[in-house]
Amino acid sequence: MTRTLKLTVAYDGAGYVGWQRQANGTSIQGLIEDAIARIEGHAVTLTGAGRTDAGVHALGQVASVRISSTITCESYVRALNGLLPDDIRVRRVDEVPPAFHARFDVRAKTYRYRLLNGPIASPFDARYAWHVTYPLDVEAMRAALGLCLGEHDFAAFQAAGSSIRDTVRTMHAARITQAPSGDAWPSLHEDSEDGEESNASRVLAISVTGDGFLRHMVRTMVGTLVEVGRGRWPPAELGRILASQDRSQAGPTAPPQGLFLVNVAY
Amino acid sequence: MTRTLKLTVAYDGAGYVGWQRQANGTSIQGLIEDAIARIEGHAVTLTGAGRTDAGVHALGQVASVRISSTITCESYVRALNGLLPDDIRVRRVDEVPPAFHARFDVRAKTYRYRLLNGPIASPFDARYAWHVTYPLDVEAMRAALGLCLGEHDFAAFQAAGSSIRDTVRTMHAARITQAPSGDAWPSLHEDSEDGEESNASRVLAISVTGDGFLRHMVRTMVGTLVEVGRGRWPPAELGRILASQDRSQAGPTAPPQGLFLVNVAY
Repeated sequence: MTRTLKLTVAYDGAGYVGWQRQANGTSIQGLIEDAIARIEGHAVTLTGAGRTDAGVHALGQVASVRISSTITCESYVRALNGLLPDDIRVRRVDEVPPAFHARFDVRAKTYRYRLLNGPIASPFDARYAWHVTYPLDVEAMRAALGLCLGEHDFAAFQAAGSSIRDTVRTMHAARITQAPSGDAWPSLHEDSEDGEESNASRVLAISVTGDGFLRHMVRTMVGTLVEVGRGRWPPAELGRILASQDRSQAGPTAPPQGLFLVNVAY
Repeated sequence: MTRTLKLTVAYDGAGYVGWQRQANGTSIQGLIEDAIARIEGHAVTLTGAGRTDAGVHALGQVASVRISSTITCESYVRALNGLLPDDIRVRRVDEVPPAFHARFDVRAKTYRYRLLNGPIASPFDARYAWHVTYPLDVEAMRAALGLCLGEHDFAAFQAAGSSIRDTVRTMHAARITQAPSGDAWPSLHEDSEDGEESNASRVLAISVTGDGFLRHMVRTMVGTLVEVGRGRWPPAELGRILASQDRSQAGPTAPPQGLFLVNVAY
């Protein structure tokens, strides 16, 4: 009698080679597989909703695994978190029907990209945001991002050399929010005596939800949006880039440490 | 013609042996001294307001240094941040009178200690908070903390084996604030579909301001407050521990990663 478990996992990706098990370096998938193997007493294979690259974080990565033990889901959460390093946390474990497939059954994914905009980045954001020093026009970025909503061929935003042929995806929702840097975090600025605003930074969070994302798609969209935000391109340029289906037309790929896989919906 | 500069520095202490230069391992003082030496063309000695231990963070550590170049303070900020790793940031540089001494002239220091209280800690708090899983009675902790206000002999909270003889210090202010975990940070919980509160965590921030702090004093106070918060001791026990002047009466030393040196006042 085997059971299928669905794991919801959060991780700080800074110290790992990415989600997927690799020959060189420590992967999140590998650590979780090893922890489950210790509980089950035999090797297991974990199926993730998708890969995340080295340095990319997750709040709600999802993976499924076939097991044979009768341990309750609650106990499984505790047992796994006891075995895993504290920068990987299993948030919940649910038993699902055997037909459940963590990758093929995905309905939608939500990613968030954090930009720290200001002259000096907090050292506590170094692992978790892209530091952009030049001023950004958020309204222009919002206008450009809006052009990506709906069904498009996103080939222009796919990593060069990718082998995926069907590059049509649907973006259901997209938004940019902003907040002062470090609201809940110990702020670099809240304790300043003179209230100087010149060094104040803000965090821009670019959130996108879609039925699927190509490799580097969010990071290349963000890199392109920053070109718009700094005034190098008008917002309408994003429509032209999309239509070109040509990666060389888009902006640079934003660095991995700003990217968070927030949620996977089934 | 030499000038004296006052540096205000923030750092993520997770990757360092502490503020002070040591024979083994990388220190924050050492990296900043090396960066200034590269700018000045000769070795310099940085005087810090005080040491911070390995793993302890700073939002506003202060240090002074004698230099001979004529570079402006603003340019110095940029030059240093260009040479330093991004988990150490120089927030500002000010020219001060030659008599300024970063350690002897301290009027007050403020520390903050972050506790993450809940069943599962966010992986993004692993480096920046102490995860306490059992429920904490914050009102009891506030009552106990209040007993530390004013002038006391804090010998009971000093690290064992410390050579400091005068252990009388004055605590000007102390407070405990609480917030949901990850307000500005990507939250583990904001995107949950079912709004389940059982896994919700909160951050307790214990802030103390005083004319000086003994080695491990804040961390031992926090370790003792947690014993009160979990119901092992009544709040009044803190008065008895203070009066004992005996380290063995106090609670355990809280781990370093929750501690932030917030501000040094002159």
